[in-house]
Amino acid sequence: MQQVTVVYPNKAEAKFDFDYYMKKHIPWVAGLLGKKIAVRRGISSATGSTAAFVCVASIPIESVSEFQALFLQHGTAILADIPNYTNIEPIVQFDEIVA
Amino acid sequence: MQQVTVVYPNKAEAKFDFDYYMKKHIPWVAGLLGKKIAVRRGISSATGSTAAFVCVASIPIESVSEFQALFLQHGTAILADIPNYTNIEPIVQFDEIVA
Repeated sequence: MQQVTVVYPNKAEAKFDFDYYMKKHIPWVAGLLGKKIAVRRGISSATGSTAAFVCVASIPIESVSEFQALFLQHGTAILADIPNYTNIEPIVQFDEIVA
Repeated sequence: MQQVTVVYPNKAEAKFDFDYYMKKHIPWVAGLLGKKIAVRRGISSATGSTAAFVCVASIPIESVSEFQALFLQHGTAILADIPNYTNIEPIVQFDEIVA
């Protein structure tokens, strides 16, 4: 089993509207893709300082090629919504779920 | 619900022994902490280049303070095992599981 992982690294002057993200972006993307999306919000680093990652989202997928076909269809619209909630450029990668 | 997230960012000359990590480190840490540990292994970036994160592990916890008490007890031993499988310094943070 694989997943798409979307990581929003913190940076100076980072903005992230979690209200918009959780109420509009995530439900809308989940509907477009027909997938569940898991969301983790950074609280703090291990030592209590600012968390390195503001948010990490993951989407379980059947395969990389299945997701690429979905993204070809909906990717442009999804990417265009990002500036509505953040000025962070997310890092996106494919992961193998090994445990 | 919260989790500890451990991220291993890729770097030049990165080494990561997944065999040791999955067969020794993870089962041993899971036993020490009495926790399940989820592991995701980076396959590639969204565009097919090297994944930014070699590995992401997450541990669901009751609370930050519960985990801090566990880590006070076992942290030194756990950290000392890291050089046995990687030369990457992991980024560790606390996350809120929001979806």
